[in-house]
Amino acid sequence: MVPDELLDLMRRRRTVRKYQTTPIDEDSLNRIMEAATLPPSSADALPYAFIIVRDEVTKKSIRAGAEAIEKRFHPKMENELKKLIEVKNITAEKPFLTQAPVLLIVAGDTTIPYWLESTWIAVSYLLLAIENEGLASLTYTPSDIDFLRKILDIPRHMSPQVIVPVGHADEEIPPKDTRPEGKIHYERYKN
Amino acid sequence: MVPDELLDLMRRRRTVRKYQTTPIDEDSLNRIMEAATLPPSSADALPYAFIIVRDEVTKKSIRAGAEAIEKRFHPKMENELKKLIEVKNITAEKPFLTQAPVLLIVAGDTTIPYWLESTWIAVSYLLLAIENEGLASLTYTPSDIDFLRKILDIPRHMSPQVIVPVGHADEEIPPKDTRPEGKIHYERYKN
Repeated sequence: MVPDELLDLMRRRRTVRKYQTTPIDEDSLNRIMEAATLPPSSADALPYAFIIVRDEVTKKSIRAGAEAIEKRFHPKMENELKKLIEVKNITAEKPFLTQAPVLLIVAGDTTIPYWLESTWIAVSYLLLAIENEGLASLTYTPSDIDFLRKILDIPRHMSPQVIVPVGHADEEIPPKDTRPEGKIHYERYKN
Repeated sequence: MVPDELLDLMRRRRTVRKYQTTPIDEDSLNRIMEAATLPPSSADALPYAFIIVRDEVTKKSIRAGAEAIEKRFHPKMENELKKLIEVKNITAEKPFLTQAPVLLIVAGDTTIPYWLESTWIAVSYLLLAIENEGLASLTYTPSDIDFLRKILDIPRHMSPQVIVPVGHADEEIPPKDTRPEGKIHYERYKN
């Protein structure tokens, strides 16, 4: 792949909060899930599992559970998170959880060393694969995500980490600018 | 990008432990570092920093520090990690830390919510960008990585997470097979 093509993909991949309800192509979903099994991981154990949710009733339960938690959490938010949700106009309503045709739930296997690091490397592979299918995504991490355990029968040793809605975007978000300022240091960390 | 090109990139990207000492192209390094600033992150804060180490003396200090820690840690290893290092013939010697022309150290900003998750999403972007430049990498996470603080002047609020050697591979590792077995569940987690 030409190097700039990968950078373009990374620039185009934006967080999308509005989705069309149109289903996604089955081949696209298969390729996305193939990507999810290709990341490096500690002990090469792929210490995670993906749950593909398309059932409307399940999506409604997930949305209801998430919104109940957000309604309790929003008034308590502080500092960085509070600033972010104000700037982005984020409320406790999470319509994307029922609008997006697919919700991917990623859970990490807490019995494997470095499971958290490995799981988030895999999330990243997912996000890029989703973008490369012309689809949009979001990494949604409710403040308390354990409500998913009951809805999705997630066993105790697996830790639900994130809900990734996948679908066709219903809003247009321009590509990212590169913003390397202050993030890259040479030879030593300099303040 | 054709979907299969991204999957091919992900399949080709393997963990490499042997490096040529040949320097890497400056444009390649710049594109890799650009990729590192493009991932999504909580509060869009890019809660991490990258330190590019090329100085031979610094690389030697890092190797010496890492090997001292590994020599203490190896006899104590158990279970999954022990199995892994036996299978992969991994010892406390870490020659890649001086062979590879560049070491990228990634540190997370612990003052930002979800800094760990965001940092590892960024590591993933790095790994794919490195592969796409025809270069090899490794995510090396010594059991106690805090020895880097002194060598690299890393401040208290930044948590060093990983050392990523970057260079031309000095060993050939075949592309990955897809191994989705048991990782993907439909509608509910099934044991």
